[in-house]
Amino acid sequence: MFRTVAKVAIIKKAVQPRNPAPVNNNYNPPPPNTANYPNTNPTYIPAYNPAYENAYASVDPFLSNLGHVNYIAIATRDIEKSIHFWRTIMGATKVSGKMTNPEHGVYTVFVDLGQTKIKLMQPIDEKSPISGFFQQNPTGGIHHICINVSDLALAIQKTKDNNIRSLGEATIGAHGFPVILLNPQDCGGVLIELEEHK
Amino acid sequence: MFRTVAKVAIIKKAVQPRNPAPVNNNYNPPPPNTANYPNTNPTYIPAYNPAYENAYASVDPFLSNLGHVNYIAIATRDIEKSIHFWRTIMGATKVSGKMTNPEHGVYTVFVDLGQTKIKLMQPIDEKSPISGFFQQNPTGGIHHICINVSDLALAIQKTKDNNIRSLGEATIGAHGFPVILLNPQDCGGVLIELEEHK
Repeated sequence: MFRTVAKVAIIKKAVQPRNPAPVNNNYNPPPPNTANYPNTNPTYIPAYNPAYENAYASVDPFLSNLGHVNYIAIATRDIEKSIHFWRTIMGATKVSGKMTNPEHGVYTVFVDLGQTKIKLMQPIDEKSPISGFFQQNPTGGIHHICINVSDLALAIQKTKDNNIRSLGEATIGAHGFPVILLNPQDCGGVLIELEEHK
Repeated sequence: MFRTVAKVAIIKKAVQPRNPAPVNNNYNPPPPNTANYPNTNPTYIPAYNPAYENAYASVDPFLSNLGHVNYIAIATRDIEKSIHFWRTIMGATKVSGKMTNPEHGVYTVFVDLGQTKIKLMQPIDEKSPISGFFQQNPTGGIHHICINVSDLALAIQKTKDNNIRSLGEATIGAHGFPVILLNPQDCGGVLIELEEHK
């Protein structure tokens, strides 16, 4: 935690705020000029162009920070029934054992589909943080998605600079990596967890 | 479509219904006996054991049918704002142009995160099939997930055999591949689209 706070302070100095990228998918940017880094010219944040992807990633750490979708978390009232659905009906072969996470108030099971995983979550009791989810979603459903970032402090700084609120402070998640939850009201209705994987 | 129906009929004969796999993650199954395929002994559907994963996949086509999560579909009222969020705030570098899918009543944009993609969807007008979603989710949110299968007819047969209803018949999806939607009431509150990728 102290390390994260310190890192944010360092990044605050190093990363200059930029203007938003213009939304223009036909735009072909010139090659990046690494001699002038950091280049604050907004035209240097391109619309997607495969030819420049790696070049840009090497210039701006922000553009290589976002990783894969780690998992999709599904809230369920009956985790055994959900295991049955994913293993016996859908045919998933890599289903973890049931784990108890008392600090998050849930039982969890991971369904590994090769890339993004499915995380099944059942509240341990009524006090579980996910119990309220079932009031709006009586049959359960997708609760949140978890996305990897290579530098959580950088991601926190970038979201704060853009008025994206987080839910609480960065903590150590169930897998032992630093995580933070972003406020779904600022993320198009999607509860997003960011998890640091260097 | 006719090909799919014919395939289902063939698979109905070939695939014997099995008992559900016992939920026991400590169980180490014996090596599969390929000479006796199809082996209907329920102990031959193991809890996940990496040592036997490939061996089993070669025995039962059902256990190699389920693929990766192709994308997470997010419904938004303002796709330009969502593009801004994913590209400029989150740092996604591979964002597609805005596509119009009149047959599905949506504008779509794909955010490629290397593995599972984010699919942004904005209704074209009030008649769009996803317009109703915003009554329960005014700010938008995760609408459905799309999972690859290698054989859609086999997946349809397996879900039907287990009383999982589908929403309509298999059709050709926006990417030109056969797709089907499963009823979220039978899938733990999750709207699942299956897309065939051979």
